[in-house]
This record gives sequence, structure tokens and C-alpha cells, in this order.
Amino acid sequence: MSGILRKEAFILPEGVIYLDGNSLGPLPKAVAARVQKMIADEWGDMLIRGWNGAGWMDQPSRVGNQVARIIGAPDGTVVMGDTLSLKVFQALAAAVKMTPKRRVILSDTGNFPSDLYMAEGLVGLLEQGYELRKVAPEEVLGAVDEDVAVVMLTQVDYRTGRTHDMKAVTKAVQAKGAVMLWDLAHSAGAIEVDLAGSNCEFAIGCTYKYLNGGPGAPAFIYVRSDLVETIEPALSGWLGHRQPFAFDLSYKAGAGIERMRVGTPPVIQLTALEVAMELWADVDMAQLRAESIKLQEQFIMEIERDVPQLTLASPRDSAVRGSQVSFRFHEGYAAMQAVIDRGVIGDFRAPDIMRFGFTPMYLDSGDISAAVAIIADVMSNNLWDQEKYKTKSKVT
Amino acid sequence: MSGILRKEAFILPEGVIYLDGNSLGPLPKAVAARVQKMIADEWGDMLIRGWNGAGWMDQPSRVGNQVARIIGAPDGTVVMGDTLSLKVFQALAAAVKMTPKRRVILSDTGNFPSDLYMAEGLVGLLEQGYELRKVAPEEVLGAVDEDVAVVMLTQVDYRTGRTHDMKAVTKAVQAKGAVMLWDLAHSAGAIEVDLAGSNCEFAIGCTYKYLNGGPGAPAFIYVRSDLVETIEPALSGWLGHRQPFAFDLSYKAGAGIERMRVGTPPVIQLTALEVAMELWADVDMAQLRAESIKLQEQFIMEIERDVPQLTLASPRDSAVRGSQVSFRFHEGYAAMQAVIDRGVIGDFRAPDIMRFGFTPMYLDSGDISAAVAIIADVMSNNLWDQEKYKTKSKVT
Repeated sequence: MSGILRKEAFILPEGVIYLDGNSLGPLPKAVAARVQKMIADEWGDMLIRGWNGAGWMDQPSRVGNQVARIIGAPDGTVVMGDTLSLKVFQALAAAVKMTPKRRVILSDTGNFPSDLYMAEGLVGLLEQGYELRKVAPEEVLGAVDEDVAVVMLTQVDYRTGRTHDMKAVTKAVQAKGAVMLWDLAHSAGAIEVDLAGSNCEFAIGCTYKYLNGGPGAPAFIYVRSDLVETIEPALSGWLGHRQPFAFDLSYKAGAGIERMRVGTPPVIQLTALEVAMELWADVDMAQLRAESIKLQEQFIMEIERDVPQLTLASPRDSAVRGSQVSFRFHEGYAAMQAVIDRGVIGDFRAPDIMRFGFTPMYLDSGDISAAVAIIADVMSNNLWDQEKYKTKSKVT
Repeated sequence: MSGILRKEAFILPEGVIYLDGNSLGPLPKAVAARVQKMIADEWGDMLIRGWNGAGWMDQPSRVGNQVARIIGAPDGTVVMGDTLSLKVFQALAAAVKMTPKRRVILSDTGNFPSDLYMAEGLVGLLEQGYELRKVAPEEVLGAVDEDVAVVMLTQVDYRTGRTHDMKAVTKAVQAKGAVMLWDLAHSAGAIEVDLAGSNCEFAIGCTYKYLNGGPGAPAFIYVRSDLVETIEPALSGWLGHRQPFAFDLSYKAGAGIERMRVGTPPVIQLTALEVAMELWADVDMAQLRAESIKLQEQFIMEIERDVPQLTLASPRDSAVRGSQVSFRFHEGYAAMQAVIDRGVIGDFRAPDIMRFGFTPMYLDSGDISAAVAIIADVMSNNLWDQEKYKTKSKVT
């Protein structure tokens, strides 16, 4: 369908079918030259004057608006910075201050571990009595009681792709008096998100996956517009100050979403991301979602037809599945290495998940069939059963 | 002197004398091509495989060792990441856990405001009774009592360049049972620092000033090697976990300095910094310090001789001055804009400080005389006294 597929906008290495855009998106073609230009003309030539002259100072909000558009957020409600883990901390710290008599941060065991770790770290700083409570994804709603200050969930499970219903969960959580924080790591650029419509207080996400911002691209944070002037930033850095260059000795939170800025922004990474986000300016997320589901359904159908060794680990119903499909295999790590060796790049998540991401901007149905043929070859001929594929590396 | 001056290694725009390397260092010539190569060959071609194959995962510690060398820290005690403000928070949070009965974070009014703001934010999270206490720089030692948990000081005052005596202050602070945290923002690459010799528990710093890492280059944190296995990271992100890819549901702090990592590192910024740091591999910091002082003494002498309108704001004794010289002028903002307009780039710090940084890697005595001649022309002819120079911009 016109409008979504734009392979020509990406560098896609010869001989590779990239089903790992859910982990690190590929390089948009325009990025290298524009980063080069920023380095030479802005850093090199303007030097310190780049902060005003090249718009570096406003870049976190400017790029925030680019991201806002594809997650259903109004202008001025999203700002970029730091990492997703730090944005978890920042959002949770603000949330617990909003519900001072409640002491529980509730999350689920399907959440990405770093979100849980950051919550643990925050609990360790807060006065005694706070706790992080983790329940199974399907038990979240039943676990929201009057002790729960904030519910923190990742909308799309990083292993299985299972989605939470953002609107329904938010409504139920808020009905119990708790604050809702959504992690959109596997949602932004992957599925339709209607943040404003969901009414959630906070959302966070990263930009190196479906948004193709590059390795270590900065994270984003969203705060509901009616709240942002009243929340107290716990990570109260100078660029979130009302007047950073007044050099006051005391913190005064900045106007609106600017208060969620912390330190000096990573201009080079933000420039790469800003260019990458230009690809999204005209994307209809409903159309992208439909294309993604089509690719996923084709993949599931062909894998189940040709590769009986693999067992679907993702929900079969595409309505509750993000933009990835996962299969279980007892030697999933070795199998994924063997598949990667033949040019089909997915990834592995312990203990037995082979994970494949679907990104209709640079994948078409021919790619899916070609990938399945390679996976089928590896599996039916046991090509994974070699010592070299069985040693676990640090990152997969 | 051979070995320090290496103008040919930097992009220095025609017609500019850059006395603002204490705010944003200039572009090292090798950076643009190497970042380009990283983007094309690593992100573009290796895609997700770059984390292992291109060494992205180890980069924060690898670059940390490059920085360690020039601040007197052993290998394995420094790691890169995030921003200086966040590293303040991280170090303070660890420090207050080490002294559980003490409730005061002590700093001075000469500290960079963001350090104070981050301490305020931390105090807001901790149980009641904690406070941030700010005293004049010369009153710090007298203010360390049995309530003080940690003393946080920036070694070189960002306005005046006045230094604290790292070794003596640390010794006095520790004698009173408090923990010592040094901010090396204006020290790293500027003056000789002997972190290990000072015995301080924590240090932090940034890399976009004297280390020329580029706008938004990541920060660093140092933890004394005997402590690092026992401190509890409050910003407990997945890349500080002992086994990030085991995806445990609970945090276990990583080995050594790795536990001070938080989220996914900014690989593009780190690559720029890693290249910039190669310029430091053979630098003798004692020699660099001597060269810096020579340039500063020349500048002070010539300004006082030729520009009587300016009053020295920095200490006259170079032994207690960092690598910058500041002058006061009642219309300092306008004067600095006029000077910048003529190619001498320094900066302004409210209310009346004109600040000039000295960086012997790319400045020589001819530059200093040329800069003074321009400043003298601007001041003696009142060239600053124009409306266009008097409007304060957001960043200076």
C-alpha cells in the first residue's frame, strides 16, 4: 500500500532480512549526512553558539512534538532526554507524590526488567513502607487496591508481544484512585496509541526501536497536560528549571513539559533522531498497524505450515498482539544464531523465545516468505545443532 | 612546548579565537569521519549485532578508562553515561546510604546550580529530616558537623575559577565522618587531578568542556575502588545489573563500576567522545597545567594593562585558579556579545562575569595577544554600547 512501505529510505544491508527493528531500528538513509552536517557546520563552526543559533536548546521539545504525533499526544506534552530507565524513575517519582497516602507501586511480571529495577531503586530511597508489587499480567486489575499509588505497565510485552488494553486498564486503575504510567517501548511507531484518549497521567518510551533513532537514542516522557504544571520533578536538573541561565541557587520547575528535562541534551543523538522522525511526518498509524498485522499473519501462517518445530508464544489474536511475533523452541538461542548466520535477523529472549519484529516501512510480504524459507531450512536440517551456535554471548 | 599544542588536531573556524572551551570544546578533526564510519558500518551494516560486534556494550567502561587516566583514577573505577546532573543524583543517593544516621547534604553557594537542584530533588524523595545545606565556599570546612552525611563540591568554581584544595578538603571532611563527592566539571582535562590520591569516595564530571566530546557528550562517575562492590545503586537500571540479559525480575548490582550504568548507552555520542579522548592518550597533565597557567598569566597581565574597564574576578594566585579567567564588568553581557561579534568567543555568567577559558591544546600566546587586542578595542571604543548587544538571549 502506498504511504507506508519506503524501503528506499533505509540502509538495508545486502543479504539481510531484518526482523529486529523492534530492538534496534535500521539506519534511515538521510541520517548519516545530516549528522555529518550538524557536526561540521554546527559543532565545528558555530561552536558554543549552536545552543541558540542551531536550535540545540529547543531540540528536546521539538523532537518531542514529532514523537507526540504518532502516540496520540498533543503538542507540548512530550519531551526527549536521558534513557527509558531514567524516565521510568522520573515518572514514578512524580506519581507517588500525587498519591501521598498510598505506598504500593504495582507492576506485572511481564514488564521489562529495567522498569522493575528502577522502581526498586526508587523504593529504596523513599521512606519506609513503600513497596514494589509484581503480579501476573492478567492479575493486574484485581490487584489495584487502596494502597496502590501508581500502576506501571509496558503496553506490549517484550517477550510475547501481548498487549494490555490501554484505555480499559487506565480507566479501571483510575477508578481505584491510582495513577497510570504506560511504558510504550514496544508501542511507539509499532501500533496505534491514543495517549490523550486513554487519559493516563504518564507515559514513557524509547526511540531506538521502531522509530529508528539509532543505538542509544534518547527516551521520551509524556505528562497529561492538566497535570504538568503541578507535578514536582524529582530529577530536578538545571534544564528543567524555569530560568536555567539565571543560575538561581534554588530549583523552580520550568513551564509545562520542559520541567521534565534534566541535564544537557545529547545533541548528536537528537539530531539523528530528529532526521529519523521525518519519515513519520505523513504516516497514518492505522494504516501502518494494518500493514503490520498483515505481515505478522503471513509469518505465523507460513511458519506454522513449514516449521512445525516452533510453537507460537505470542497471542494468536492480532488485536492483542503488538508488532512482533515470538515462537518457543527449546534450543531457541542456538536456532536464532543459526538463522542470523543466514541473514534473517531476529533475536532471542531467555529462556526459549525466538522473537521477530514486523516493520512495514521496510518489510514486505516477499521478505516474510524469504525469511520463513530460511528459518524452515535451518530447522528442518537441524543446522542450529552445532557447538558454535550454543555459546551464549552477552547480547543477543 | 612540544606535546601539548596540537592546533592541527582541531577544527578552529577562520577568524575565531575560541576562549570558551570550558563550556563546549571545539570539534577534533578526527571525530566527523569516525562518527560517519560508526553510523554507516556499525549501525547501518551490523545493525543489532553492533552491541557485541562493534563493542558498543563495553564502550562506557572503555571510555571510562580513557577519562580515568587524566584524573588520576585507576582503570575500572570510572564509567560513562547519562548527564552530569544525573551522576550528581546517583553519587549523592549512594553517599547518603553510607551514612544512615546523618541527614545533611552540605554544599557551597559557588557550586553549579544543577548540582544543588539535583540534591534538592533527592532530599524531596528521602524520608523527612534530610536537608541540603548551602554555605559560602570558605565556610565549608567549618560547617561539617556530625549531621553531615556527604559534602558535595565542585572543585573549580564555574564563575570565578576559584579552586578548592581537593586533598585537604577531603581529608577534613572524612575526619568528621562524612563522605566526599567532587564535581570535576571544570577540572577534567583542565588541571591536574589526583582522585585516587585524594581518597574521596565519589567524583563526577562532564566531557563536553575541556575533553571536547561534543554537545551533550555523556558524563562520568568515579567510585573509590574499595567501595564500589558495596554501594547500592539507586538508579538501578538494567545495564547496571549483574546479568542484564538474564532478565531477572529483581535487581542485582553488577560487578564493580558497571553497577553505576543505568540504561542503554548513547553509542553515537560515546563514539565522538572516544575519538576525542584519543588526543589525551599521551598528554602529561602537569605540562598541560603549566601551559594553561602561562596563557592565563599572559591574559591577565595584558588585560590589566590594556583594558582598565575590566576587574579581575578570578583569584590572582594561579595555584588556586582553574583553567579560566573571569572579569567583572557592569555591562558584561553586552560587552561579551560585542567581543564575540568580533571573533573572540568567551561567555557571560550572571550577574556581571565575563568568562574566558584557556586550553593549551589549541591556543597559543599569539592567540591571547590577538584576543586582548580585540577586547581592548571593544572596550576602549564602547563598541558594546549598542541596543543589539543588550538583549539577553536564552543561552550565552
